[in-house]
Amino acid sequence: MNTHLQPTPVPLDAMESDPRHMAWMVGTPPPPQKRVRFDDGSMLRFPQNRWANSNYRNLVPTKVISRGPGPVVTLERADRQDLDALQFQPIGSSTPMRWDQSLLTNYTDGIVVLHRGRIVYERYAGALNADTPHIAFSVTKSFIGCIGACLVYEGLIDETAMVTHYIPELAGSGFADATVRQVLDMTTGLDYSEDYTDSEAGIWHHARAGGLLFRPTGYQGPDSFYEFLPTVKKQGVHGAHFSYKTINTDVLGWIIQRVTGMSLADNLSQRIWSLLGAEHDAYITVDSAGTEFAGAGLNTTLRDLARFGEMMRNGGRALGQKLLYPEVVADISRGANPAQFVSAGYHTLPGWSYRSMWWISHNPHGAYMARGIHGQALYIDPLAEMVIARYGSHHIAGNLGIDPHSIPAYHAMALHLMQSN
Amino acid sequence: MNTHLQPTPVPLDAMESDPRHMAWMVGTPPPPQKRVRFDDGSMLRFPQNRWANSNYRNLVPTKVISRGPGPVVTLERADRQDLDALQFQPIGSSTPMRWDQSLLTNYTDGIVVLHRGRIVYERYAGALNADTPHIAFSVTKSFIGCIGACLVYEGLIDETAMVTHYIPELAGSGFADATVRQVLDMTTGLDYSEDYTDSEAGIWHHARAGGLLFRPTGYQGPDSFYEFLPTVKKQGVHGAHFSYKTINTDVLGWIIQRVTGMSLADNLSQRIWSLLGAEHDAYITVDSAGTEFAGAGLNTTLRDLARFGEMMRNGGRALGQKLLYPEVVADISRGANPAQFVSAGYHTLPGWSYRSMWWISHNPHGAYMARGIHGQALYIDPLAEMVIARYGSHHIAGNLGIDPHSIPAYHAMALHLMQSN
Repeated sequence: MNTHLQPTPVPLDAMESDPRHMAWMVGTPPPPQKRVRFDDGSMLRFPQNRWANSNYRNLVPTKVISRGPGPVVTLERADRQDLDALQFQPIGSSTPMRWDQSLLTNYTDGIVVLHRGRIVYERYAGALNADTPHIAFSVTKSFIGCIGACLVYEGLIDETAMVTHYIPELAGSGFADATVRQVLDMTTGLDYSEDYTDSEAGIWHHARAGGLLFRPTGYQGPDSFYEFLPTVKKQGVHGAHFSYKTINTDVLGWIIQRVTGMSLADNLSQRIWSLLGAEHDAYITVDSAGTEFAGAGLNTTLRDLARFGEMMRNGGRALGQKLLYPEVVADISRGANPAQFVSAGYHTLPGWSYRSMWWISHNPHGAYMARGIHGQALYIDPLAEMVIARYGSHHIAGNLGIDPHSIPAYHAMALHLMQSN
Repeated sequence: MNTHLQPTPVPLDAMESDPRHMAWMVGTPPPPQKRVRFDDGSMLRFPQNRWANSNYRNLVPTKVISRGPGPVVTLERADRQDLDALQFQPIGSSTPMRWDQSLLTNYTDGIVVLHRGRIVYERYAGALNADTPHIAFSVTKSFIGCIGACLVYEGLIDETAMVTHYIPELAGSGFADATVRQVLDMTTGLDYSEDYTDSEAGIWHHARAGGLLFRPTGYQGPDSFYEFLPTVKKQGVHGAHFSYKTINTDVLGWIIQRVTGMSLADNLSQRIWSLLGAEHDAYITVDSAGTEFAGAGLNTTLRDLARFGEMMRNGGRALGQKLLYPEVVADISRGANPAQFVSAGYHTLPGWSYRSMWWISHNPHGAYMARGIHGQALYIDPLAEMVIARYGSHHIAGNLGIDPHSIPAYHAMALHLMQSN
């Protein structure tokens, strides 16, 4: 393991690691030990990541995702004072936890709860506020999945076609005999590890190729995402089981770019951001070839993320317009076959499935999620008419330590909002 | 000289070098020879700069300069069809030139002419359009100069104080015995070259320290702007003559940050951008310490630059509010002593002076300018009630080849607008 992946032995808690308390990047100039940098990997390291995750564009190149000149959809407020005291049962614990405690436990940078489209709860911490963007990490995938699924619906992409039909460059890779649908649902069998605690995992080689991880002197590896993807080998079979691998989203992004002839940023702007009533432009990180990181590069304000969730809850509509096809949203929320999900071993997500880059709970409320490392989340509960958007900077990448104090909290919030209205 | 400074032997003309024609960064991914990159210096090289100058945030880290939630000031239109045929006499030529030809000659990426606050002429070329930002290069300085001059007016900065009163870190440098006013007017005597054609010029060491020029393997030099500035030595005396050196602006930026306790981006947002009626957020490049490039890092849309010029023309007012003090604007437009300007040797700018980071013509119209390499310009003609904002990507850095086909054109435009209304 190299140092950028080392968590501190006894992690600071949420208050101790508050970036204002830590005084990251404070001073003219900040003292060297208080700088958060790209080229020493500190931006990815806890607790520096609590500053970096709200300041990605200060650290790496980005492309704008324009909201265009359209009107802002004001989210009406119906703030409630009873929600902080909401109790829920964390997974694997016999002691109830309060909602407000869960936000600290999970190193929350911000959270918004919408009920019937109105803000009932909104909190910010760390380096985030209502008007500044935060990196969405793998929540990005669900945006790209929506665009991919729309292009399939429109017939511009054939989901039964081989990936190589669109991207011949992948002919020699593990993707060669995978279909677009297998990529969309991540049922490909690929020799690529998503274990963030292993510095030799494929995800880090991928990130380094894409310019999101600094390169050692003399680096000779792939120079961009689209130079890395063809080097990925096959492992196992395609179509049998869900296996979460970020590179699937970047292959999907490649296909989207090729069939539309437009950048992902422009796709995101034209299909979603300019029609959403967003308050702010979003942005996305890019590699040295100008290619967006489809797998994890999106940055948005929390409210704009919530607006996206509300649009999904409304079957793809916002501002009286259809952004996404209701059939596409319905297909996503119905999910895939949970039997294909079991072997992935997510013990915090029993009975779930993965469809078009979304996580589907198959719970009685029909809840489904976009999820990103360090606790990024968009949770949509159709029955409860509730959307939760959350950004965070947990000291551990991955969601295994976060799910126990978030997923049952979200469900408890849904039940509470249903009962008390 | 190293390669990033080499112009092509016979430069392509404006049409040939059009970035759409060159197909920079087109393709999924663009072929390697069509990429414009930070780490090989191609972003600074003509003709790649014609793409890069409209896409800086895709290449380097940046900070947002927020326009905030305030209203957009719509620039009313009064487009005129007679302006392309306007004739003027280029400096040093006996052959008249047409206005529209001058735009090609000077590799214009976009130009807006306001008369009495209304758009009478607006054109875009290259990679620029009305809604995308372009790098302002040294036009940035005039924004920072306005903020510095306002802080002097407010008494937060004493212009007669030594620079080291605010920045003790400069005690061992050539700035040690310079006053704030000498820095504001660039009458410091410093061992630092602004000759862009010399790869060993101080400006390139400065840019490299600030992360705007790639660093060779094993680079051991200063790691940020504020580590470079204390290394600058004195040459000559302070206060005698104007001598254009970008580092003065970065010292001014340092002072502004220290006395306000705010980043330059936030200063620019709070004092100017959020009050200007701007259409878009602006942004500014930052170094590894998060410090903005006060000397050249600003990126704006052309119309928003024009709005800034119009605010200056209106004595510091926009939207019925005072952004800048009328006394500050008047002091700038009055200029400094032209006798101190002579030895700088700008033969295209006879009788001009430099005041608070602005270029003052002392012509009968009282025109004054913000100027940046490769032809960036904001030209304010109070008598003609005219503002011209221009972005460009000339094949040569510096303005010696650009002034002959721009400054007389701007003055001819002013006379024409005065006569024909």
